[in-house]
Amino acid sequence: MKLLEERILKDGLVLAGDVLKVDSFLNHQIDVELIAELSKEWKRLYEGEGVNKIVTIEASGIGIACIAAQYFSCPVIFAKKSKSSNIGNDFYTDSVVSYTHGGTYQVVLSKKYLGKDDRVLIIDDFLANGSALRALCNICEKAGATVVGAGIAIEKAYQGGGDMIRKRGIRVESLAKIRSMSDDGTIVFD
Amino acid sequence: MKLLEERILKDGLVLAGDVLKVDSFLNHQIDVELIAELSKEWKRLYEGEGVNKIVTIEASGIGIACIAAQYFSCPVIFAKKSKSSNIGNDFYTDSVVSYTHGGTYQVVLSKKYLGKDDRVLIIDDFLANGSALRALCNICEKAGATVVGAGIAIEKAYQGGGDMIRKRGIRVESLAKIRSMSDDGTIVFD
Repeated sequence: MKLLEERILKDGLVLAGDVLKVDSFLNHQIDVELIAELSKEWKRLYEGEGVNKIVTIEASGIGIACIAAQYFSCPVIFAKKSKSSNIGNDFYTDSVVSYTHGGTYQVVLSKKYLGKDDRVLIIDDFLANGSALRALCNICEKAGATVVGAGIAIEKAYQGGGDMIRKRGIRVESLAKIRSMSDDGTIVFD
Repeated sequence: MKLLEERILKDGLVLAGDVLKVDSFLNHQIDVELIAELSKEWKRLYEGEGVNKIVTIEASGIGIACIAAQYFSCPVIFAKKSKSSNIGNDFYTDSVVSYTHGGTYQVVLSKKYLGKDDRVLIIDDFLANGSALRALCNICEKAGATVVGAGIAIEKAYQGGGDMIRKRGIRVESLAKIRSMSDDGTIVFD
Protein backbone atom coordinates (compact mmCIF):
# COMPACT_ATOMS: atom_id res chain seq x y z
CA MET A 1 0.00 0.00 0.00
CA LYS A 2 1.64 3.13 -1.30
CA LEU A 3 0.40 5.43 1.50
CA LEU A 4 2.00 3.29 4.21
CA GLU A 5 5.22 2.68 2.29
CA GLU A 6 5.64 6.41 1.74
CA ARG A 7 5.02 7.12 5.40
CA ILE A 8 7.62 4.53 6.43
CA LEU A 9 10.15 6.11 4.06
CA LYS A 10 9.32 9.59 5.36
CA ASP A 11 9.09 8.98 9.13
CA GLY A 12 10.53 5.52 9.82
CA LEU A 13 14.06 5.12 11.19
CA VAL A 14 16.29 2.12 10.62
CA LEU A 15 18.33 1.50 13.76
CA ALA A 16 21.19 -0.86 14.44
CA GLY A 17 20.12 -4.43 15.22
CA ASP A 18 17.53 -4.67 12.44
CA VAL A 19 15.09 -2.33 14.17
CA LEU A 20 12.56 -0.29 12.19
CA LYS A 21 11.37 2.51 14.45
CA VAL A 22 7.92 3.77 13.48
CA ASP A 23 6.90 5.12 16.85
CA SER A 24 6.03 8.53 15.43
CA PHE A 25 2.90 7.18 13.74
CA LEU A 26 2.28 3.50 14.53
CA ASN A 27 3.22 2.20 17.96
CA HIS A 28 3.84 4.99 20.45
CA GLN A 29 2.32 8.03 18.85
CA ILE A 30 -0.54 6.75 16.66
CA ASP A 31 -1.80 8.60 13.59
CA VAL A 32 -5.43 7.51 13.70
CA GLU A 33 -6.20 8.96 10.26
CA LEU A 34 -3.49 6.78 8.73
CA ILE A 35 -4.84 3.75 10.64
CA ALA A 36 -8.30 4.47 9.26
CA GLU A 37 -6.86 4.27 5.74
CA LEU A 38 -5.15 0.94 6.55
CA SER A 39 -8.44 -0.30 7.97
CA LYS A 40 -10.34 0.57 4.79
CA GLU A 41 -7.81 -1.45 2.83
CA TRP A 42 -8.20 -4.50 5.13
CA LYS A 43 -11.96 -4.09 4.81
CA ARG A 44 -11.65 -4.11 1.01
CA LEU A 45 -9.38 -7.17 1.09
CA TYR A 46 -11.60 -9.17 3.45
CA GLU A 47 -14.97 -7.95 2.14
CA GLY A 48 -17.55 -10.73 2.09
CA GLU A 49 -15.56 -13.02 4.39
CA GLY A 50 -18.06 -12.69 7.23
CA VAL A 51 -15.58 -11.43 9.80
CA ASN A 52 -17.35 -11.12 13.17
CA LYS A 53 -14.42 -10.81 15.59
CA ILE A 54 -11.10 -9.03 15.43
CA VAL A 55 -8.34 -10.55 17.55
CA THR A 56 -5.08 -8.82 18.42
CA ILE A 57 -2.41 -8.85 21.10
CA GLU A 58 -1.46 -6.20 23.63
CA ALA A 59 -0.17 -3.57 23.53
CA SER A 60 0.52 -1.95 20.18
CA GLY A 61 -2.04 -3.97 18.23
CA ILE A 62 -4.98 -2.72 20.26
CA GLY A 63 -5.41 0.74 18.79
CA ILE A 64 -5.14 -0.44 15.22
CA ALA A 65 -7.54 -3.31 15.87
CA CYS A 66 -10.13 -1.01 17.44
CA ILE A 67 -10.12 1.35 14.48
CA ALA A 68 -10.29 -1.58 12.04
CA ALA A 69 -13.19 -3.09 14.00
CA GLN A 70 -15.29 -0.03 13.27
CA TYR A 71 -15.12 -0.88 9.57
CA PHE A 72 -16.11 -4.50 10.20
CA SER A 73 -18.81 -3.55 12.77
CA CYS A 74 -17.57 -6.18 15.18
CA PRO A 75 -15.89 -6.33 18.59
CA VAL A 76 -12.16 -6.60 19.27
CA ILE A 77 -10.61 -9.08 21.67
CA PHE A 78 -7.03 -8.52 22.68
CA ALA A 79 -4.92 -11.39 24.01
CA LYS A 80 -3.23 -10.36 27.22
CA LYS A 81 0.32 -11.02 28.24
CA SER A 82 0.38 -13.11 31.39
CA LYS A 83 3.20 -13.46 33.86
CA SER A 84 1.76 -16.67 35.21
CA SER A 85 1.64 -19.91 33.26
CA ASN A 86 -0.97 -21.13 35.75
CA ILE A 87 -4.02 -19.18 34.68
CA GLY A 88 -6.77 -21.72 35.27
CA ASN A 89 -9.33 -23.14 32.88
CA ASP A 90 -11.09 -19.98 31.81
CA PHE A 91 -8.54 -18.99 29.17
CA TYR A 92 -7.08 -20.20 25.93
CA THR A 93 -3.35 -19.77 26.12
CA ASP A 94 -0.25 -20.02 23.96
CA SER A 95 3.34 -18.86 24.17
CA VAL A 96 5.20 -16.16 22.26
CA VAL A 97 8.95 -15.94 21.79
CA SER A 98 10.04 -12.31 22.03
CA TYR A 99 13.09 -11.47 19.97
CA THR A 100 12.89 -7.82 21.00
CA HIS A 101 12.92 -8.39 24.75
CA GLY A 102 14.26 -11.95 24.89
CA GLY A 103 12.55 -14.92 26.49
CA THR A 104 9.09 -16.42 26.17
CA TYR A 105 5.81 -15.15 27.55
CA GLN A 106 2.27 -16.51 27.73
CA VAL A 107 -0.71 -14.85 26.09
CA VAL A 108 -4.23 -15.55 27.30
CA LEU A 109 -7.69 -15.00 25.87
CA SER A 110 -10.92 -15.67 27.76
CA LYS A 111 -12.90 -18.70 26.56
CA LYS A 112 -16.08 -16.65 26.97
CA TYR A 113 -15.34 -14.45 23.97
CA LEU A 114 -14.21 -16.83 21.24
CA GLY A 115 -15.87 -20.00 19.93
CA LYS A 116 -16.64 -22.19 16.95
CA ASP A 117 -19.08 -19.76 15.32
CA ASP A 118 -16.49 -17.02 15.09
CA ARG A 119 -14.81 -15.87 11.89
CA VAL A 120 -11.72 -14.07 13.01
CA LEU A 121 -9.54 -11.43 11.41
CA ILE A 122 -6.25 -11.10 13.28
CA ILE A 123 -4.81 -7.57 13.24
CA ASP A 124 -1.32 -6.52 14.30
CA ASP A 125 1.15 -3.71 13.68
CA PHE A 126 4.20 -5.88 12.92
CA LEU A 127 4.92 -9.33 11.55
CA ALA A 128 8.57 -10.41 11.77
CA ASN A 129 9.40 -13.88 13.06
CA GLY A 130 5.69 -14.62 13.32
CA SER A 131 5.68 -15.83 16.90
CA ALA A 132 2.87 -13.53 18.08
CA LEU A 133 0.72 -14.25 15.01
CA ARG A 134 1.28 -18.00 15.39
CA ALA A 135 0.14 -17.80 19.03
CA LEU A 136 -3.03 -15.94 18.03
CA CYS A 137 -3.74 -18.52 15.27
CA ASN A 138 -3.19 -21.33 17.79
CA ILE A 139 -5.59 -19.71 20.26
CA CYS A 140 -8.26 -19.37 17.54
CA GLU A 141 -7.73 -23.03 16.63
CA LYS A 142 -8.10 -24.10 20.26
CA ALA A 143 -11.36 -22.12 20.37
CA GLY A 144 -12.61 -23.86 17.21
CA ALA A 145 -12.89 -20.47 15.51
CA THR A 146 -12.13 -19.91 11.82
CA VAL A 147 -9.20 -17.64 11.05
CA VAL A 148 -10.30 -15.78 7.94
CA GLY A 149 -6.87 -14.20 7.74
CA ALA A 150 -4.48 -11.68 9.16
CA GLY A 151 -4.22 -7.95 8.49
CA ILE A 152 -0.72 -6.68 9.21
CA ALA A 153 0.59 -3.15 8.85
CA ILE A 154 4.30 -3.88 8.35
CA GLU A 155 5.78 -7.27 7.49
CA LYS A 156 9.53 -7.79 7.62
CA ALA A 157 9.25 -10.37 4.87
CA TYR A 158 12.91 -11.41 5.05
CA GLN A 159 12.40 -12.73 8.60
CA GLY A 160 10.13 -15.48 7.32
CA GLY A 161 7.30 -15.30 9.85
CA GLY A 162 4.71 -14.39 7.23
CA ASP A 163 5.65 -17.31 5.00
CA MET A 164 5.52 -19.70 7.95
CA ILE A 165 1.92 -18.62 8.62
CA ARG A 166 0.97 -18.68 4.91
CA LYS A 167 2.31 -22.25 4.64
CA ARG A 168 -0.21 -23.15 7.30
CA GLY A 169 -2.90 -22.13 4.78
CA ILE A 170 -3.72 -18.87 6.47
CA ARG A 171 -4.18 -15.75 4.38
CA VAL A 172 -1.88 -12.92 5.43
CA GLU A 173 -2.35 -9.42 4.00
CA SER A 174 0.49 -7.08 4.90
CA LEU A 175 0.12 -3.51 3.72
CA ALA A 176 3.86 -2.85 3.60
CA LYS A 177 6.22 -5.78 2.98
CA ILE A 178 9.86 -5.03 3.60
CA ARG A 179 12.22 -7.09 1.47
CA SER A 180 15.40 -5.65 2.95
CA MET A 181 16.66 -2.97 5.27
CA SER A 182 20.20 -1.65 5.71
CA ASP A 183 21.92 0.22 8.49
CA ASP A 184 22.38 3.19 6.14
CA GLY A 185 18.60 3.66 6.26
CA THR A 186 17.73 2.08 2.90
CA ILE A 187 14.41 0.24 2.91
CA VAL A 188 13.32 -1.90 -0.05
CA PHE A 189 9.70 -3.01 -0.33
CA ASP A 190 8.41 -6.12 -2.06
CA MET B 1 -23.95 8.62 31.06
CA LYS B 2 -27.00 6.39 31.05
CA LEU B 3 -25.82 4.14 28.20
CA LEU B 4 -22.62 3.18 30.03
CA GLU B 5 -24.30 2.78 33.43
CA GLU B 6 -26.89 0.47 31.92
CA ARG B 7 -24.18 -1.58 30.22
CA ILE B 8 -22.26 -1.92 33.49
CA LEU B 9 -25.42 -3.11 35.27
CA LYS B 10 -26.19 -5.55 32.44
CA ASP B 11 -22.73 -7.02 31.74
CA GLY B 12 -20.44 -5.97 34.60
CA LEU B 13 -19.59 -8.40 37.38
CA VAL B 14 -18.68 -7.43 40.93
CA LEU B 15 -16.04 -9.84 42.22
CA ALA B 16 -14.56 -10.27 45.68
CA GLY B 17 -11.78 -7.81 46.52
CA ASP B 18 -13.59 -4.76 45.15
CA VAL B 19 -13.13 -5.80 41.52
CA LEU B 20 -15.55 -4.63 38.80
CA LYS B 21 -15.09 -6.95 35.84
CA VAL B 22 -16.11 -5.32 32.57
CA ASP B 23 -13.96 -7.43 30.28
CA SER B 24 -16.90 -8.36 28.06
CA PHE B 25 -17.09 -4.84 26.61
CA LEU B 26 -14.32 -2.56 27.88
CA ASN B 27 -10.92 -4.07 28.57
CA HIS B 28 -10.51 -7.52 27.04
CA GLN B 29 -13.32 -7.75 24.54
CA ILE B 30 -14.00 -4.20 23.36
CA ASP B 31 -17.37 -3.06 22.04
CA VAL B 32 -16.17 -0.40 19.62
CA GLU B 33 -19.68 0.93 18.99
CA LEU B 34 -20.09 1.62 22.69
CA ILE B 35 -16.67 3.30 22.78
CA ALA B 36 -17.72 5.51 19.85
CA GLU B 37 -20.68 6.69 21.94
CA LEU B 38 -18.41 7.44 24.91
CA SER B 39 -16.09 9.31 22.55
CA LYS B 40 -18.92 11.49 21.24
CA GLU B 41 -19.73 12.42 24.83
CA TRP B 42 -16.11 13.35 25.60
CA LYS B 43 -16.08 15.38 22.41
CA ARG B 44 -19.23 17.20 23.52
CA LEU B 45 -17.77 17.87 26.97
CA TYR B 46 -14.41 19.12 25.68
CA GLU B 47 -15.69 20.93 22.59
CA GLY B 48 -13.83 24.17 21.95
CA GLU B 49 -10.94 23.31 24.26
CA GLY B 50 -8.45 22.99 21.42
CA VAL B 51 -7.41 19.42 22.22
CA ASN B 52 -4.57 18.45 19.85
CA LYS B 53 -3.16 15.33 21.56
CA ILE B 54 -4.75 12.42 23.37
CA VAL B 55 -2.55 10.73 25.94
CA THR B 56 -3.25 7.35 27.51
CA ILE B 57 -1.41 4.46 29.12
CA GLU B 58 -0.93 0.91 27.92
CA ALA B 59 -2.67 -1.42 27.61
CA SER B 60 -6.42 -1.10 28.04
CA GLY B 61 -6.54 2.67 27.48
CA ILE B 62 -5.16 2.44 23.95
CA GLY B 63 -8.23 1.23 22.08
CA ILE B 64 -10.54 3.73 23.74
CA ALA B 65 -8.07 6.55 23.14
CA CYS B 66 -7.72 5.69 19.44
CA ILE B 67 -11.45 5.75 18.87
CA ALA B 68 -11.78 9.01 20.83
CA ALA B 69 -8.94 10.56 18.83
CA GLN B 70 -10.95 10.15 15.65
CA TYR B 71 -13.53 12.56 17.05
CA PHE B 72 -10.85 15.09 18.01
CA SER B 73 -8.92 14.63 14.73
CA CYS B 74 -5.64 14.35 16.60
CA PRO B 75 -3.01 11.70 17.30
CA VAL B 76 -2.81 9.43 20.35
CA ILE B 77 0.33 8.89 22.39
CA PHE B 78 0.34 6.00 24.81
CA ALA B 79 2.74 5.94 27.74
CA LYS B 80 4.57 2.64 27.88
CA LYS B 81 5.28 0.54 30.91
CA SER B 82 9.01 0.19 31.36
CA LYS B 83 10.82 -2.47 33.32
CA SER B 84 13.91 -0.34 33.51
CA SER B 85 14.16 2.83 35.58
CA ASN B 86 17.24 3.74 33.55
CA ILE B 87 15.70 4.78 30.24
CA GLY B 88 18.00 7.63 29.23
CA ASN B 89 17.17 11.23 28.41
CA ASP B 90 14.76 10.75 25.53
CA PHE B 91 11.70 10.09 27.67
CA TYR B 92 9.52 11.78 30.23
CA THR B 93 8.92 9.30 33.00
CA ASP B 94 6.86 8.89 36.15
CA SER B 95 5.89 6.03 38.44
CA VAL B 96 2.56 4.26 38.93
CA VAL B 97 1.55 2.28 42.00
CA SER B 98 -0.41 -0.78 40.90
CA TYR B 99 -3.01 -1.93 43.41
CA THR B 100 -4.18 -4.71 41.10
CA HIS B 101 -0.79 -6.33 40.59
CA GLY B 102 1.15 -4.87 43.54
CA GLY B 103 4.34 -2.86 43.37
CA THR B 104 5.39 0.18 41.40
CA TYR B 105 6.26 0.48 37.73
CA GLN B 106 7.64 3.23 35.53
CA VAL B 107 5.78 4.72 32.56
CA VAL B 108 7.66 6.48 29.79
CA LEU B 109 6.66 8.81 26.98
CA SER B 110 9.02 10.05 24.28
CA LYS B 111 10.00 13.71 24.53
CA LYS B 112 9.63 13.95 20.76
CA TYR B 113 5.85 13.72 20.86
CA LEU B 114 4.78 16.07 23.65
CA GLY B 115 5.70 19.71 24.27
CA LYS B 116 4.61 23.12 25.46
CA ASP B 117 2.26 23.79 22.54
CA ASP B 118 0.18 20.71 23.24
CA ARG B 119 -3.32 20.75 24.71
CA VAL B 120 -3.84 17.27 26.04
CA LEU B 121 -6.91 15.22 26.79
CA ILE B 122 -6.03 12.17 28.89
CA ILE B 123 -8.23 9.15 28.21
CA ASP B 124 -8.44 5.96 30.27
CA ASP B 125 -10.84 3.13 30.95
CA PHE B 126 -10.69 3.22 34.77
CA LEU B 127 -9.97 5.73 37.49
CA ALA B 128 -9.70 4.28 40.99
CA ASN B 129 -6.83 5.35 43.23
CA GLY B 130 -5.67 7.76 40.53
CA SER B 131 -2.07 6.63 40.36
CA ALA B 132 -1.99 6.12 36.57
CA LEU B 133 -3.81 9.39 35.89
CA ARG B 134 -1.49 11.27 38.25
CA ALA B 135 1.54 9.85 36.40
CA LEU B 136 0.12 10.98 33.04
CA CYS B 137 -0.60 14.47 34.43
CA ASN B 138 2.95 14.63 35.82
CA ILE B 139 4.39 13.63 32.45
CA CYS B 140 2.35 16.34 30.69
CA GLU B 141 3.56 18.86 33.26
CA LYS B 142 7.18 17.84 32.72
CA ALA B 143 6.63 18.33 28.98
CA GLY B 144 5.18 21.80 29.59
CA ALA B 145 1.94 20.70 27.93
CA THR B 146 -1.48 21.87 29.08
CA VAL B 147 -3.80 19.18 30.43
CA VAL B 148 -7.22 20.25 29.24
CA GLY B 149 -8.75 17.43 31.27
CA ALA B 150 -9.32 13.73 31.55
CA GLY B 151 -11.99 11.56 29.95
CA ILE B 152 -12.58 8.42 31.98
CA ALA B 153 -15.04 5.63 31.26
CA ILE B 154 -15.55 4.29 34.81
CA GLU B 155 -14.56 6.08 37.99
CA LYS B 156 -14.69 4.26 41.32
CA ALA B 157 -15.47 7.54 43.06
CA TYR B 158 -15.23 6.04 46.56
CA GLN B 159 -11.52 5.31 46.06
CA GLY B 160 -10.72 9.00 45.96
CA GLY B 161 -8.37 9.13 42.98
CA GLY B 162 -10.67 11.38 40.96
CA ASP B 163 -10.99 13.89 43.78
CA MET B 164 -7.23 13.92 44.28
CA ILE B 165 -6.78 14.90 40.61
CA ARG B 166 -9.65 17.42 40.69
CA LYS B 167 -8.07 19.12 43.74
CA ARG B 168 -5.03 19.68 41.56
CA GLY B 169 -7.30 21.85 39.40
CA ILE B 170 -7.62 19.34 36.59
CA ARG B 171 -11.02 18.72 35.03
CA VAL B 172 -12.04 15.05 35.17
CA GLU B 173 -15.10 13.84 33.27
CA SER B 174 -16.06 10.28 34.15
CA LEU B 175 -18.96 8.84 32.21
CA ALA B 176 -19.95 6.39 34.95
CA LYS B 177 -19.16 7.27 38.56
CA ILE B 178 -19.56 4.45 41.01
CA ARG B 179 -20.49 5.57 44.52
CA SER B 180 -20.53 2.09 46.02
CA MET B 181 -20.28 -1.57 45.11
CA SER B 182 -21.15 -4.61 47.22
CA ASP B 183 -20.15 -8.25 47.00
CA ASP B 184 -23.80 -9.16 46.32
CA GLY B 185 -23.44 -7.39 42.97
CA THR B 186 -25.19 -4.13 43.84
CA ILE B 187 -23.70 -1.10 42.10
CA VAL B 188 -24.77 2.43 43.01
CA PHE B 189 -23.89 5.31 40.69
CA ASP B 190 -23.38 8.95 41.69
